[in-house]
Amino acid sequence: MNGYVGKILKIDLTKNTIKDEVLKEADLKKYIGGCGLGAKYLIESTDGDTDPMGEENILIFMTGPLTNTKSFSSDRFEVVTKSPLGGYSEANCGGKWGSMLKRSGYDGIIISGKSNNPVYIWIDDGEVKILDAGKIWGLDTFGSEKILKAETTDKAEVTCIGPGGENMVKYAVIATGGVHARVAARSGAGAVMGSKKLKAIVVYGTKEVVINDPDGFDKFIKNNSKKVATSDVAKFLRDLGTPGCVEGSESCGDLPIKNWTQLRMKNIRDLYGETMRDKYLSRRYYCGGCLVGCGRVVNIIDGKYKTDSEIGGPEYETLGMLGSNLMINNMEAVCKFNEMCNRYGIDTISTGSVIGMIMECYDRGLIDREYLDGIDMTWGNEDAVLQIINKIGKAEGIGKLLGKGTRDVAKEIGSHSVEFAVQVKGLEAPAHDPRAKSSLALAYATSNRGACHLQHYGYDMEGEGGPTVPDMGVTENLDRFTTEGKAEFVIKFQNLMSMYDSLTCCKFMMLCTISLKPLLEEFNLITGFNFDEDTFLETGERIFNLKRLYNTKCGISRKDDTLPLRILNQKRSFEEEEDVLPCLGKMLDEYYRLRDWDEIGIPMTKKLKELGIDEYL
Amino acid sequence: MNGYVGKILKIDLTKNTIKDEVLKEADLKKYIGGCGLGAKYLIESTDGDTDPMGEENILIFMTGPLTNTKSFSSDRFEVVTKSPLGGYSEANCGGKWGSMLKRSGYDGIIISGKSNNPVYIWIDDGEVKILDAGKIWGLDTFGSEKILKAETTDKAEVTCIGPGGENMVKYAVIATGGVHARVAARSGAGAVMGSKKLKAIVVYGTKEVVINDPDGFDKFIKNNSKKVATSDVAKFLRDLGTPGCVEGSESCGDLPIKNWTQLRMKNIRDLYGETMRDKYLSRRYYCGGCLVGCGRVVNIIDGKYKTDSEIGGPEYETLGMLGSNLMINNMEAVCKFNEMCNRYGIDTISTGSVIGMIMECYDRGLIDREYLDGIDMTWGNEDAVLQIINKIGKAEGIGKLLGKGTRDVAKEIGSHSVEFAVQVKGLEAPAHDPRAKSSLALAYATSNRGACHLQHYGYDMEGEGGPTVPDMGVTENLDRFTTEGKAEFVIKFQNLMSMYDSLTCCKFMMLCTISLKPLLEEFNLITGFNFDEDTFLETGERIFNLKRLYNTKCGISRKDDTLPLRILNQKRSFEEEEDVLPCLGKMLDEYYRLRDWDEIGIPMTKKLKELGIDEYL
Repeated sequence: MNGYVGKILKIDLTKNTIKDEVLKEADLKKYIGGCGLGAKYLIESTDGDTDPMGEENILIFMTGPLTNTKSFSSDRFEVVTKSPLGGYSEANCGGKWGSMLKRSGYDGIIISGKSNNPVYIWIDDGEVKILDAGKIWGLDTFGSEKILKAETTDKAEVTCIGPGGENMVKYAVIATGGVHARVAARSGAGAVMGSKKLKAIVVYGTKEVVINDPDGFDKFIKNNSKKVATSDVAKFLRDLGTPGCVEGSESCGDLPIKNWTQLRMKNIRDLYGETMRDKYLSRRYYCGGCLVGCGRVVNIIDGKYKTDSEIGGPEYETLGMLGSNLMINNMEAVCKFNEMCNRYGIDTISTGSVIGMIMECYDRGLIDREYLDGIDMTWGNEDAVLQIINKIGKAEGIGKLLGKGTRDVAKEIGSHSVEFAVQVKGLEAPAHDPRAKSSLALAYATSNRGACHLQHYGYDMEGEGGPTVPDMGVTENLDRFTTEGKAEFVIKFQNLMSMYDSLTCCKFMMLCTISLKPLLEEFNLITGFNFDEDTFLETGERIFNLKRLYNTKCGISRKDDTLPLRILNQKRSFEEEEDVLPCLGKMLDEYYRLRDWDEIGIPMTKKLKELGIDEYL
Repeated sequence: MNGYVGKILKIDLTKNTIKDEVLKEADLKKYIGGCGLGAKYLIESTDGDTDPMGEENILIFMTGPLTNTKSFSSDRFEVVTKSPLGGYSEANCGGKWGSMLKRSGYDGIIISGKSNNPVYIWIDDGEVKILDAGKIWGLDTFGSEKILKAETTDKAEVTCIGPGGENMVKYAVIATGGVHARVAARSGAGAVMGSKKLKAIVVYGTKEVVINDPDGFDKFIKNNSKKVATSDVAKFLRDLGTPGCVEGSESCGDLPIKNWTQLRMKNIRDLYGETMRDKYLSRRYYCGGCLVGCGRVVNIIDGKYKTDSEIGGPEYETLGMLGSNLMINNMEAVCKFNEMCNRYGIDTISTGSVIGMIMECYDRGLIDREYLDGIDMTWGNEDAVLQIINKIGKAEGIGKLLGKGTRDVAKEIGSHSVEFAVQVKGLEAPAHDPRAKSSLALAYATSNRGACHLQHYGYDMEGEGGPTVPDMGVTENLDRFTTEGKAEFVIKFQNLMSMYDSLTCCKFMMLCTISLKPLLEEFNLITGFNFDEDTFLETGERIFNLKRLYNTKCGISRKDDTLPLRILNQKRSFEEEEDVLPCLGKMLDEYYRLRDWDEIGIPMTKKLKELGIDEYL
């Protein structure tokens, strides 16, 4: 099985057992790796009744056939589990841990059960140990990584949770890369890891992947390296990182401001990518196999938010959710918030969203200062944000409630606070507004993990001046407000994105020349599976449907495929006609029809049979 | 106090006490009568904690200064109570009972407490008795009225509940007029009456109202009678009744079809007003003081739905909700449904809405035939509808659940059934679609009793060819899709409608020449209060705000000022651009601003002070 190690590691933390399972080629052809294989294992082991925090839930770490090859930006890994939010959870993570897992001798790991005491797993080139993590339990992610490397080897790669995961914050992440903080975020995999008392997985190894056509593959890499590295998007990201998107996003109404109620923000320039580059950037961070280097490393040399050393800088999403969304335009403050969230191991998007919601509740008098443990949560109050992040990470006082996410917070505070919770299926929306780009409406509503921009990742092609993906039929930018054709557009790219996540290839690659055809070429050169385009995209369709089928088993249907009232119904300006309320209902009808799902969003048996996954019905 | 009797009757059914309370002129000037006085008494006696079905709730019957004068179409009465749905409830009712109550010596009645055994109240020209209703408890409204007249006098007027009210169906009505069935419907006053074990109130009397300027008033009536009777709207209503609206409503997308999912219906012509007139109409029914005669009296001479005798015919709302909404276009069947709902004393709008919802749940497989006591609830199945109406009226089997209304049914059935419940604040929407006329969106969202077309009653002025109301500044028809100016429009007419409901004047009068100026003239001639237009409209504003303040005490705010997801978000056609999703959020922001309510819809203290109702804060 070229491209694969051919086995996965199964660890039961209740029984303290370790065993290997050999992968079958038929499964690999059907589910590839990453989220595809992950979804298959998840649906085979858990269902609607499974308690996400119970020992019956499983936590899956998975790589794909491209991982640990020279493929562009594919040294990533995918985490799949049943989400603390109640449905399917997946998270893709950069850094170098994914390739090192494969070097250590495994394509993936499935953790079941629960340990009584904190433990970590150490895989040393094929040898697996479950070790005590008592000493590091309670430490932040940066500190944990340092100690674990010291305990094992400096050459090892570590993925771990911080206090956020330990305290089962519903949006806790699994982190890797130390201060550079690449994280498997969104939908709470860190909380599941915490519930299992698993602090970290440390991997080291020397094994290489066998390539089916090594010469052809080398030639492919050689031919494409320059194209990737010098593509417009690569140059943009290398120069400004994702913070470079703040400017365009604000100007078209895509950026959340004041908990999604405002269209413009004063002095937004202070949060621009250029500001970060010119004032704080010390260097770039590259994930394994990356030629782009979008990761920011910053250094704040003095003032209140002085950094002790170089530190990973905030992404666009963080600048949006913990910056403009809270009426904060101080780049240094957002760098600090980002660092603290990374240390605690909590998702910056959800953290920003829950804080925005609380600021609005406070502003409108639904809760008072006493309710907030004395913290004055006025818009733009940086000190208050920092205090709240600490409380969430430590699950202290009001932080305990806030760590449950906006959906639960709305239930607790009640009344109209439900309008301030900007989430879908319990997952807080990232910093892109469907009122600016209509595909986001449908993508948020139908993403399997909740409000997510990455399960579709098509919004960049909407509006003038964006990139195109000709080999997927997008030869010019789409009108960003129309709903016409968007259902088909969303479906096509959701299927493709399921392949990127199964191959653990960075999605930026799609815009840096490695779109459908080159990706397929890489895949065939490595595996020898010789898929054609149709088979490749149908595989993505199969995987997407499998995830939906899992959600169906968890009670999810059309009633959940919706948007926060604020996005569906609220214009941000009386004067301007820049934001258009997306007609989700109409797009959803078309979407279901094209997907062969019934009118309430349940995949039809005929379709599941066609995709060969009716056995999971 | 010209125009008024000057006293109200207070009956405590727990203590079995009867007493008179003298009205104060200051209160009459401030709250007029009808819903105005009703709201004042309600907010003084009950609040958010009051159990609507408990003995602490009060049930108010109220007339106004125009009632039992020669004023046009004002012999009506208003019922105000705390709704079984949790907030403010009001219902206006035609017939002749209102004027007879005043002739019996009272402007209104307030019932408190609860009787142990069924009783009725008999007011015989000032003499009040609480009598046993054991023999008629369980009888339908038609039969009850007959017996009660026999027990008292044929000249008496009866208002009573049927089995629906006795069984506390949440949308039970209080009826009068026997087979002609004029009803105080919407928001469940009949259920409150049933909870008090009060079957009926029978009134008879000979007292007349003192008019402040009798000559001037006579002259006014003489001058205006012909204008009213020959106005376009009067002629239309006399000819076709409200069923005459089916044609125009269907053609512009205003008519609910298949539980609000379709834009057109085959053979809709069979439900037209012309069809009723040409095939079934035997004569017209006139409420007290009416020159129009919009009430239909029909006779079906043979076939399955043969009537025993002449019977009140269905209104437009009933043809919509129990006809097209259920995919039924058989006029005879709808006449039968209407008769049965009237006999049971249940609201035809809510009944039709809950049946439409259940048909959709059944069609989509959320519930099966067994769940429905073996009834095959397929779209258009007339027999099934009749069976279900019987079950609701009798609170038998599945009818018990359905009698709680769509909001509760959705909670019980769960899952996506919530999307099929077309209600606001628990009250089912009437047969007018906000996707056809944008003011309806705002009117439904902000009406104090839930989704109601009559608390604003402006939609007729939207779209070409409709009536205008020049003395309210509407000199030409409004664009039916725009949101521009609609907040101001809704507010203006909500305030005016609060006056019609306080004066107990039929709202059709507004379109039959008795709009603002003539209404005000009548009012001044009768009372001698000499209000100017500003004072008159400010009084309406005061009353509307008082109702909202009551709802605020019941926990109602912006979160409740919304629309069913289906209306907010769902287009009914891929091809046609005839329905436009109303941007409620934008209109709501403007509405709150213009009303001087805060951003979440709470009336600001400043405004309440200005209106002189801050004492109720």
